[in-house]
Amino acid sequence: MTKRHLLAAAAAALALPAAAAQAQDRLPPALTATIDPKVAQLRDAALDDTLAYDITRGLTTEIGPRLAGTAAEARAREWAVKRLKALGFENVHIETYRMPVWVRGAETGEVVAPYMQPLRLTALGNSGATPAAGLTAPVVYFRSFADLVAAPQGSLTGKIAFVSNAMRPTQDGSGYGQYGMARFAGPNLAAKKGAAAIVIRSIGTDHSRAPHAGVTNFDEGVEPIPAAALSVADAENLARMVESADDPVMLHLTLTPRRTGMHESGNVIAEVPGTDPDAGIVLIGGHLDSWDLGTGAIDDASGLAITTAAAKRILDAGGARRTIRVVWFGAEEVGGFGGEAYARAHGDDRHVVAAESDFGADRIWRVQTNLPDGAKAVGDRLARALAPLGIVRGDGVAGDGADIGPILRGGVAAVDLNQSGLRYFDWHHTPEDVLDRVDPEQLQQNVAAWTAMLAVIANAPEPIGGVSRDK
Amino acid sequence: MTKRHLLAAAAAALALPAAAAQAQDRLPPALTATIDPKVAQLRDAALDDTLAYDITRGLTTEIGPRLAGTAAEARAREWAVKRLKALGFENVHIETYRMPVWVRGAETGEVVAPYMQPLRLTALGNSGATPAAGLTAPVVYFRSFADLVAAPQGSLTGKIAFVSNAMRPTQDGSGYGQYGMARFAGPNLAAKKGAAAIVIRSIGTDHSRAPHAGVTNFDEGVEPIPAAALSVADAENLARMVESADDPVMLHLTLTPRRTGMHESGNVIAEVPGTDPDAGIVLIGGHLDSWDLGTGAIDDASGLAITTAAAKRILDAGGARRTIRVVWFGAEEVGGFGGEAYARAHGDDRHVVAAESDFGADRIWRVQTNLPDGAKAVGDRLARALAPLGIVRGDGVAGDGADIGPILRGGVAAVDLNQSGLRYFDWHHTPEDVLDRVDPEQLQQNVAAWTAMLAVIANAPEPIGGVSRDK
Repeated sequence: MTKRHLLAAAAAALALPAAAAQAQDRLPPALTATIDPKVAQLRDAALDDTLAYDITRGLTTEIGPRLAGTAAEARAREWAVKRLKALGFENVHIETYRMPVWVRGAETGEVVAPYMQPLRLTALGNSGATPAAGLTAPVVYFRSFADLVAAPQGSLTGKIAFVSNAMRPTQDGSGYGQYGMARFAGPNLAAKKGAAAIVIRSIGTDHSRAPHAGVTNFDEGVEPIPAAALSVADAENLARMVESADDPVMLHLTLTPRRTGMHESGNVIAEVPGTDPDAGIVLIGGHLDSWDLGTGAIDDASGLAITTAAAKRILDAGGARRTIRVVWFGAEEVGGFGGEAYARAHGDDRHVVAAESDFGADRIWRVQTNLPDGAKAVGDRLARALAPLGIVRGDGVAGDGADIGPILRGGVAAVDLNQSGLRYFDWHHTPEDVLDRVDPEQLQQNVAAWTAMLAVIANAPEPIGGVSRDK
Repeated sequence: MTKRHLLAAAAAALALPAAAAQAQDRLPPALTATIDPKVAQLRDAALDDTLAYDITRGLTTEIGPRLAGTAAEARAREWAVKRLKALGFENVHIETYRMPVWVRGAETGEVVAPYMQPLRLTALGNSGATPAAGLTAPVVYFRSFADLVAAPQGSLTGKIAFVSNAMRPTQDGSGYGQYGMARFAGPNLAAKKGAAAIVIRSIGTDHSRAPHAGVTNFDEGVEPIPAAALSVADAENLARMVESADDPVMLHLTLTPRRTGMHESGNVIAEVPGTDPDAGIVLIGGHLDSWDLGTGAIDDASGLAITTAAAKRILDAGGARRTIRVVWFGAEEVGGFGGEAYARAHGDDRHVVAAESDFGADRIWRVQTNLPDGAKAVGDRLARALAPLGIVRGDGVAGDGADIGPILRGGVAAVDLNQSGLRYFDWHHTPEDVLDRVDPEQLQQNVAAWTAMLAVIANAPEPIGGVSRDK
């Protein structure tokens, strides 16, 4: 369905003749109530947006990979300031902080017995290093993370754990939490059980040779072991080798990442000042840093681009009642240092709503909020404004986003505009996260949704108070 | 359409009631004439074949990449002999020859000004080397091979030519010849025009980060320059950089491939002996060597697997009138040394038909032959036997295949079973040529087609004479 079909369908739904009353009864309430024509106009104009694609193209072409704490991330901040000022935003500036940096070294793996062939892999963030000449050890195969958990203490001594759980695509991305455990917790667990190293099947839904990077963490006092993600195709190949070989499969692994100490990173901030200084701030954005294998197009140049293009549309329309603050957070991938630094610096600013775009550039299918009871009508108007874009209202708990997490935990209301995750984990953290993965039309649907969201939330006449948080 | 749908449709077409006479008039002649029931039975049973997938899986899992002239290709020959003997073929043996070997070294590229980011690339076969520390030079952008041809002599001195023509998918693979010129002839031409090096957009139809390897050749007396293929995504990114930069884009390129001299390669031969020693040989096969970046699944483990599985079905059915000789050719990718060695050794054997499978594992859509006039009825029976598999008869000139080329040039008739090329060049010569690219059901359709072909051709009672060849 093209965007024009989408609008035609929605327009048709809003103009049903009386004879269709029964059908209308079954339409969601969002389609049977009035939408502010100014909001609708801003939203629909955004379906022809070109700025978001232009920002995504510029950042991936002129900067490329931008690992947190590196010179590339610093170049990206300068690029951002120049671009955001040129777009006419106010109060454009960088806020720096310092953070520990881990950088990739050599990374190769080869099966050396009973078969012989190279495997494609990448070191996980915070991985330990092998000797420079590598290490050779037998592979112990675990079909799932649970199997690794069940392995007896000490049973991995001198061996390489291989955890191969297969992630499936889900629209809401919920597979990441479940299957991601092999990456988040597997290395620490294998180290505690005595493993010399660990390789995991990439946490990804593709079947390609591109390995998926990402951080892992070791408990205080646990010496980091070499930890790498095999591409899905290579993990499948290694599993076939283990299954067909009579003798143990031996893997030679060379990983030489290192910690380079504390370095500077930073957040880039830009604003559309509100007309009512007492109405608070709507905080939006994404993250500027990226993993180093791709050019960070869907993770997360597109998130910056979507939120910035939406804010620019509000700016060009004369601004809104509330200040819109766009933050291009630094150092998200490697531990959320930018979000923490922002909360330290701005935790006392009067944020009323925070929302983040960090799940690619595919179509938004759901909106969720946790607006306080006093602002229930705002949420209803938001859902109505988004429905013609094919966005349904969910009743889950809002609050996605590592960057805005520290602010949300302070009691600020959240709006989640959930993108489809069906393709996201095909490319997440891989060399394949490049401009070609961004579908310009789906990107425009994102800009339209964010524009509508800002138009409703930032202009809402009602006060939007804080929400209580468990943590 | 599944294979069961396919058969049902064909069966329905063959059993039309009288009332459908008009419709029947419009059916192709192949569907309105009788098919030998033994051929039909062999063909349809092959739609449940598992051997071809098993061979493809085994070779890619237990051997993996097998560049011609290397130890990996030698291991693959031993694997082949063991497997072919276990399957019950006769006269299984290796025939060796010597060939010049070129091996990959380091291969990296980075844009260093006015932007800074790494690019993914791979050296082309026969590429020259840069200094160990690499070379840095400005990029001269050519949108097409024709633009490179038009560049004035000497205009590239000290520069890196960048040829970026974009190949499109075609069912018959005809884009390869056209767009492949950038690889086949581009480096030689750029060298003659004084270029320090050349990078080309990969000859591929994907948009991934996986570069497409492949050979290039330099004229006698032309010093090979460093020559690499950028992945399609990286070529697109570099083109965007050239277009957006005010200053020349500078590329730092490090390629250290080298020639290691003459080494041993070999062909593996297996036979299903014919019942009539005077009826000649039907020569089939594919190539055992592969490019080194992937595991050579669709290029060409699947070709070996398809032809071998089909021959095995004839073997298990008691053989055929003619000898079926299956050859797993060595050293195809790097210059067709296996095919030449075979023709030197066996050019005088009485081959009546030669056919090769070297275009992946996707569905066969067309059959073409150049059988001599005396064997026209054989071609008609063949087309009828293949029609229920959805295979149409083409009227082009048969004779595909680098390995059987030298034999065909001696005047042997050819049968081409053309696979769809719509996906083939997404993965051709890339790291992505792995088992995951093989669709088991399409592979089975291939085996069924080859089985039917062998059942018709190898059993044909007519003599099949030679054909005249222009060259």
